[in-house]
Amino acid sequence: MDLDQLTRRLREFASERDWDQFHTPKNLAMALVGEAGELTEIFQWLTPEDSARIMEDPATAQEVQNEIADVFAYLLRLADVLGIDIAAALTGKIALNEVKYPAALARGTAVKYDKLRTEH
Amino acid sequence: MDLDQLTRRLREFASERDWDQFHTPKNLAMALVGEAGELTEIFQWLTPEDSARIMEDPATAQEVQNEIADVFAYLLRLADVLGIDIAAALTGKIALNEVKYPAALARGTAVKYDKLRTEH
Amino acid sequence: MDLDQLTRRLREFASERDWDQFHTPKNLAMALVGEAGELTEIFQWLTPEDSARIMEDPATAQEVQNEIADVFAYLLRLADVLGIDIAAALTGKIALNEVKYPAALARGTAVKYDKLRTEH
Amino acid sequence: MDLDQLTRRLREFASERDWDQFHTPKNLAMALVGEAGELTEIFQWLTPEDSARIMEDPATAQEVQNEIADVFAYLLRLADVLGIDIAAALTGKIALNEVKYPAALARGTAVKYDKLRTEH
Repeated sequence: MDLDQLTRRLREFASERDWDQFHTPKNLAMALVGEAGELTEIFQWLTPEDSARIMEDPATAQEVQNEIADVFAYLLRLADVLGIDIAAALTGKIALNEVKYPAALARGTAVKYDKLRTEH
Repeated sequence: MDLDQLTRRLREFASERDWDQFHTPKNLAMALVGEAGELTEIFQWLTPEDSARIMEDPATAQEVQNEIADVFAYLLRLADVLGIDIAAALTGKIALNEVKYPAALARGTAVKYDKLRTEH
Repeated sequence: MDLDQLTRRLREFASERDWDQFHTPKNLAMALVGEAGELTEIFQWLTPEDSARIMEDPATAQEVQNEIADVFAYLLRLADVLGIDIAAALTGKIALNEVKYPAALARGTAVKYDKLRTEH
Repeated sequence: MDLDQLTRRLREFASERDWDQFHTPKNLAMALVGEAGELTEIFQWLTPEDSARIMEDPATAQEVQNEIADVFAYLLRLADVLGIDIAAALTGKIALNEVKYPAALARGTAVKYDKLRTEH
């Protein structure tokens, strides 16, 4: 299914259950950050290296996949109820970031990252 | 652009800037929840009713669209580095939820919501 | 127990279990936002009015209390490993906010809130 | 200032500005997770080792301290409007965790952490 089909499927799912009353932008934003928090918890005690191997354990892989699906579901619902074209929003943002972080300058010494790193 | 194209575009964007070293699953999960938190902040003091009218103000609408794009970008990057087919993950989750919340039973008195509501 | 005693108790708890190795600031920040996300989930489908009555249901009240304790625990651990005096940090921030949001001006039409509300 | 004094100070601060109307538990939970998200963003691209040295840079140290103060402020406000004794909630939770993670068993091979780590 493509983005439009997924969005429509989620809209029908909510509508069939009379859940639109709960799906205000405020509530959906909360649900989204709650699911993002659950996703974070899977990675919180792992080293970055261990986090890169997380899909090797089938049970954890399934858990990660479920949480990613939950975040995606609420993100698409939120964009839908707000009337936002999420693919267009992202391509617009990428175009802005092309200007903000030129590849030639950003290589290696990316300001975006370096400004957050302590000197030592 | 469809999901595959967006994913590929974001992959190239990171690669051109040599940012793959920062894009461990752990770091991307943090970036995702951070952006989700920023999205939440836009809605935190609004009534649910006001939140439904948020796109009427052009400046706020742009802000919401930017934050949604940021969440989407990190979500797609995370799925990509983990090798997860995000559309398949979501359709799988919807199929599970069809069983978990049957439309006939979930209408109006949805357990999912009622269990979280205090009696009064 | 006061703040110092709670901080010391949590430090001992981690030390007795050899968990200091996991308690880097990065990991503790993740754990904190994860617990904050769980707290958010309790409130996500409630109306603001229902959220104000949440302590009337004993089981939910206990759940809320547990999540608040979890957030508090990771917040104190994080401040501790960073060497931050959290009471001093908060009193300093309150002093700044006294200047930023003068009571005389902020009453009713608080800019902090109004700037986030759509006109209608 | 101790916990009670900080809580009272924050209560007065909100009351003087007529902000109690915004401080529903639902809204405060959102504000809390939003600030926790901002805190997370400071650490997201750092290695765990770099995160442990973050206070060496004065500007970043101040930023971390501010975010920790913001999280603490909303946490205390939330506990206050819910009528929760946050120190008692935390000591209760520590007592439960003493049973759940006995020091003798949790040392080194802590189940809490190991269950989240992939084998390799």
